[in-house]
Amino acid sequence: MKKLINNPEDVLREALQGIEIAHAGLVKVHFDPVYIARADAPVAGKVGILSGGGSGHEPMHGGFVGPGMLDAACPGAVFTSPTPDQILEATHAVDGGAGVLYIVKNYTGDILNFEMAADLARAEDIQVEMVVVSDDVAVENSLYTAGRRGVGTTVLMEKIVGAAAEARWPLGKIVALAERVRDNGRSMGMALTSCTVPHAGKPTFNLPEDEMEIGIGIHGEPGRVRMKLKPADEIVEMLLEPVIKDLPFQAGDNVIMFVNSLGGTPLIELYLIYRKACEIAARHGLRVVRNLIGPYMTSLEMAGASITLLKVDGDMVSLWDAPVKTAGLRWGV
Amino acid sequence: MKKLINNPEDVLREALQGIEIAHAGLVKVHFDPVYIARADAPVAGKVGILSGGGSGHEPMHGGFVGPGMLDAACPGAVFTSPTPDQILEATHAVDGGAGVLYIVKNYTGDILNFEMAADLARAEDIQVEMVVVSDDVAVENSLYTAGRRGVGTTVLMEKIVGAAAEARWPLGKIVALAERVRDNGRSMGMALTSCTVPHAGKPTFNLPEDEMEIGIGIHGEPGRVRMKLKPADEIVEMLLEPVIKDLPFQAGDNVIMFVNSLGGTPLIELYLIYRKACEIAARHGLRVVRNLIGPYMTSLEMAGASITLLKVDGDMVSLWDAPVKTAGLRWGV
Repeated sequence: MKKLINNPEDVLREALQGIEIAHAGLVKVHFDPVYIARADAPVAGKVGILSGGGSGHEPMHGGFVGPGMLDAACPGAVFTSPTPDQILEATHAVDGGAGVLYIVKNYTGDILNFEMAADLARAEDIQVEMVVVSDDVAVENSLYTAGRRGVGTTVLMEKIVGAAAEARWPLGKIVALAERVRDNGRSMGMALTSCTVPHAGKPTFNLPEDEMEIGIGIHGEPGRVRMKLKPADEIVEMLLEPVIKDLPFQAGDNVIMFVNSLGGTPLIELYLIYRKACEIAARHGLRVVRNLIGPYMTSLEMAGASITLLKVDGDMVSLWDAPVKTAGLRWGV
Repeated sequence: MKKLINNPEDVLREALQGIEIAHAGLVKVHFDPVYIARADAPVAGKVGILSGGGSGHEPMHGGFVGPGMLDAACPGAVFTSPTPDQILEATHAVDGGAGVLYIVKNYTGDILNFEMAADLARAEDIQVEMVVVSDDVAVENSLYTAGRRGVGTTVLMEKIVGAAAEARWPLGKIVALAERVRDNGRSMGMALTSCTVPHAGKPTFNLPEDEMEIGIGIHGEPGRVRMKLKPADEIVEMLLEPVIKDLPFQAGDNVIMFVNSLGGTPLIELYLIYRKACEIAARHGLRVVRNLIGPYMTSLEMAGASITLLKVDGDMVSLWDAPVKTAGLRWGV
C-alpha cells in the first residue's frame, strides 16, 4: 500500500488535526466524538444543515462546512458510517433553535444511524428533518444499500440547501427544497482502478489493466458491467444517456452539470469529459446553465469519474450562485 | 494506459474545448495558436500577467486565468514547452498598454521560448519583463533545467502578482514584487508513483511497490534519492527541513504554506501532511499565516506531494487575500 500516512488507524485523526489548523477561523473540529462544525455554530435562528458519512470522499463532507453550505459534518472512519452519538453531538452544536436538516446519502448504515440520532434529538425537542439522496441510476440495490445509492447530487444539494438556510428560510421550506433537489438529480459513475482503504492495506477490488467498470459506487461497490476500456466519448455516452433517460430530462430543461473525479483522474480528463457531456446534453435540448468540475466527491485515489445532472429552476440557480465560504467550495465572500 | 481520453493526440484540444464551454464568461480559448486569455483581455492600463508551460499540471496555468490572477496562459503539449508564436499571440491579447510580465518556471525550453517571444514583442514596442521561478531545493541542475527547477512558488507568485496587477501597480513595481516572491519561496516534492504521458502510453519511470523518490520533479525528473517508503511524518521532515534551511527561513518569519498534491494523492493525506508540516514550522519559530492545500500544480495522476514555503510581508498577505476569480482559485468576488 503506497500512501502518505503514518499508522492506518491514525489517518482520520491526523487529517482532522490538519483541517483544524488549516481552517481555524472557519471550522471547529471536535474529536470525541468526531465532527466538524462552523466556527460560529450554532447560528441563532438559522436552520442547521448537517451531513456526514464515511471518510475517504474528501472534500465531501467536512470540506463543505462553512457559511452558505453545511453547519456541520460527521465523518465516520474511511468508508464507514458515522455513529449516532457523533450525529447527536453535532446536532446539539448546530441547533440554533430553527431546526436541523440531515442530508444523508442512501447507505444502510448511514440511514440507520442518522435516524437513530434524529429520534434522540427529537426526544430533546429539537426539530429534526432528514432528506435521503439516492440519485445513482446505475443499480437498484447495492452492496450497502436498499434502493439506489446516494452520490453526486448530495454535493449540489448541500450547496443549494445551505444557501437557503443562510438566507434564513424556515425548516419546512428547506425540506421541500431539498426534496426538490433530490427528485431532480441523477448520477452515474465509472472506475478505471480500485482504491485502497488504509485499514485494509490492499485494493478493494481488482480491475484488469484493459478493463473498466461502468456504474461503480463510491466505495467500489459493483456497478452495471465490466468491459474493455473504451474511448472517453463512448464512456460519457454510457454514463449520461441512462442519467438523462431516468428522470427523464427533457428538451428545454435547465441543468447544473457536475463532472466529478473519483480522485485519481486528472482535471485535463474531466474537461475532456465535460466537452462530450455538453454535446450529448445539447443533443437532448438540455441547457447547461451552471457546472462543477473537479474532485469534489472522491473515493480516495480511485481513477474514474461520475456525471451528475440536476434539473434546476430559477430559485435553485440563485441559491447555487449565492456566496459560499468553505475549504472545498468558495466564492462570493 | 488507463485514461479517460480518446486519441492521445487530441487530449489537449478536447480538454481546451471543455474549458472553453465550462468557463465561457471567464476565459476565451484560442486554438491556433493555443492560449487561454481572460474574456475581457486586454484590460486597458493594466499590466498583463502571462504564464505558461507544458500541460499536465492542471489547474496550473490555464485554471489560474481570470480577474486577480493571470491574463493569459499558454499551454504546451503535455510536459512540453509552449512555442514562441503562442506566447507572442497571447502577449498581443493581454497587452493593455502598461506592459506584460511573463512568469516562467525554470525549464530550459520554457526559458528559450519565452525569451524569444519577449524579443519579438519588444521589437513591436510592447514592454515585456520576465521573472523566472527556480524554487525547488531538491537538485541544483536537472533533466530539463540549468539551475533549480521552478515549482510550487509559481502558483503563489501568480496569485500575489496577479492581485497587484489587478490593483493597477505599474510594471516596475510588479517586477520587483515578483522578484521578492521568487527570492523568498522554496519547495520540495516527492512521489510514490509515476504518471503516464498520453502520447508515451507507458509510465515515465518505474518505482518499486515499496519505494518512493524524494525530490522528484513535476515531470518525473530524478530527485535526490530513492528509498523505502517511510511514514508520512518522516517524509514531511525530509521535504521541509531542506526547504527551511535553504532560504533560510528564520524564527519570527511569516510564511504561506502550500501543500500540493501531484494528482493521485487524496486530500485526506494532504491534511495529514499539513499537520506535521505546521508542527515542524512551529519548531523553527515560523508563523504560518496563510495556507493552500490541494491539487494545484499536478503531474497528471502521479501520487505524491510537494511543500512550498513563502516568506511574506504584509503587502504580500493583502495581495494573497485580494479577490480572485478563476476556475482553479476563487474567492472574494
